[in-house]
Amino acid sequence: MYHPHDTYLDVRYAETDAMGVVHHSRYLPWLEVARTDWMVALGTHYSEIERLGYFLVVSEIGARYLRPARFGDRVRINTHLKRVRSRQVRFEYEIFRVGDGDLLFTAFSEHILTDREGSLRRFPPELLAMLEKNQDERAAASG
Amino acid sequence: MYHPHDTYLDVRYAETDAMGVVHHSRYLPWLEVARTDWMVALGTHYSEIERLGYFLVVSEIGARYLRPARFGDRVRINTHLKRVRSRQVRFEYEIFRVGDGDLLFTAFSEHILTDREGSLRRFPPELLAMLEKNQDERAAASG
Amino acid sequence: MYHPHDTYLDVRYAETDAMGVVHHSRYLPWLEVARTDWMVALGTHYSEIERLGYFLVVSEIGARYLRPARFGDRVRINTHLKRVRSRQVRFEYEIFRVGDGDLLFTAFSEHILTDREGSLRRFPPELLAMLEKNQDERAAASG
Amino acid sequence: MYHPHDTYLDVRYAETDAMGVVHHSRYLPWLEVARTDWMVALGTHYSEIERLGYFLVVSEIGARYLRPARFGDRVRINTHLKRVRSRQVRFEYEIFRVGDGDLLFTAFSEHILTDREGSLRRFPPELLAMLEKNQDERAAASG
Repeated sequence: MYHPHDTYLDVRYAETDAMGVVHHSRYLPWLEVARTDWMVALGTHYSEIERLGYFLVVSEIGARYLRPARFGDRVRINTHLKRVRSRQVRFEYEIFRVGDGDLLFTAFSEHILTDREGSLRRFPPELLAMLEKNQDERAAASG
Repeated sequence: MYHPHDTYLDVRYAETDAMGVVHHSRYLPWLEVARTDWMVALGTHYSEIERLGYFLVVSEIGARYLRPARFGDRVRINTHLKRVRSRQVRFEYEIFRVGDGDLLFTAFSEHILTDREGSLRRFPPELLAMLEKNQDERAAASG
Repeated sequence: MYHPHDTYLDVRYAETDAMGVVHHSRYLPWLEVARTDWMVALGTHYSEIERLGYFLVVSEIGARYLRPARFGDRVRINTHLKRVRSRQVRFEYEIFRVGDGDLLFTAFSEHILTDREGSLRRFPPELLAMLEKNQDERAAASG
Repeated sequence: MYHPHDTYLDVRYAETDAMGVVHHSRYLPWLEVARTDWMVALGTHYSEIERLGYFLVVSEIGARYLRPARFGDRVRINTHLKRVRSRQVRFEYEIFRVGDGDLLFTAFSEHILTDREGSLRRFPPELLAMLEKNQDERAAASG
């Protein structure tokens, strides 16, 4: 079943830069928060995955900055799992400003599963099944 | 004339995360340092551009994480200007670990020129000329 | 009336470092979030103060790190206004781990009011009155 | 022998905030860079200490912000070891703007030595001897 998820964050002053807007690097930790939330909504905390000795490592990021976010803004991050492979997942994100609803930012992130030594690993079957059940079916059909 | 530029940085402890490696978001400020250095090597400090009322805003980022960087590593960021348009530039980057020479990370960044209010602006002629003179000619030929 | 305030935050992965715990510098943005929340609870957003041309600038920080916070932890930041002067305020903070209730961190921050040019300013009377009404009376009595 | 040490850093754009100056939290990673440099100047890299299973954990920070640093500024961080105990060290720092020489910031940091599990440990004799030899003698005399 398709499982998109919304995470709400208030822009922190420390996330702004001298242009008066959120620094472009600060969106990546937001995506990480959103992924963590997405997993919590599914019943797993990412720290559990690390406790089992697995690490979901970022292998690729693509991001488009459409409109600036500012201190005082509240943003909504819509996250969905776009694709699951035996060793790899792809998340996609849209960030909106709550209030005017403007789309500020879109991104994807690719992740690979590794062990503590950094070697590529396959998802444990239960985790893979859980992820597959929750990926965007439209994507799975077309991808 | 093609103008690549090398910037050297030592990984800061504060840039690592609980995986024991540099957090993926920390590479973006490194690219910003590298762009600043690239401009300094050409005789302009980016703060001068802002003093003239222009802002070079990040509009897109693409990044591939190939191997982790760790505290204690020294990295070399090779930067070059891939493409200049009247209102837009694209930089490309490769980050290597000094020592073993391993390629750790590749990325591009697209930037648009705006004024203080965020409206799109054309590069002032002298700045445009300077940028055009220093873009990667191989890219200009093929692009 | 004494006005302490609780802010709840989930530790972000990006806030951890290679020791596996929250990096000591990451607590300062948390305090900033907590101050912002404290003001919102009083009916003012800090961005409004900046819109009036005032800046509450950090002039001093003191912090004790008692126990580490980790990814997966939820923390509670208790904030109170310890002292108000015509141009200066002091906030104090305690950070607890939700769950075991352990005290992780204590801190204070001193702030001065400036204008856009960085010159020292007095609080506007309404803002001063609002702050004075909400400082810790026990402190005001003994201080 | 008294061993103060100077570290030079260029302000990064990502270190600024919407006030147009360096965010107060960003000075703490600078102090960490300065401590690392201080140790390198003595012939030890901090990552070696961690490889031996020791962690130098920040237990207290005190910082005064005197004048803002801005993007485009180069700063000099003067570091010295103020005090060594069997399980604890105290560093002190002054940060100056290169150019006008203005003192921008002063701070101290207290650190305790722990093992990987976070238990307090004594410095290994050679490391303690090295540290004692390099602390500020004036402080040792008066402290």
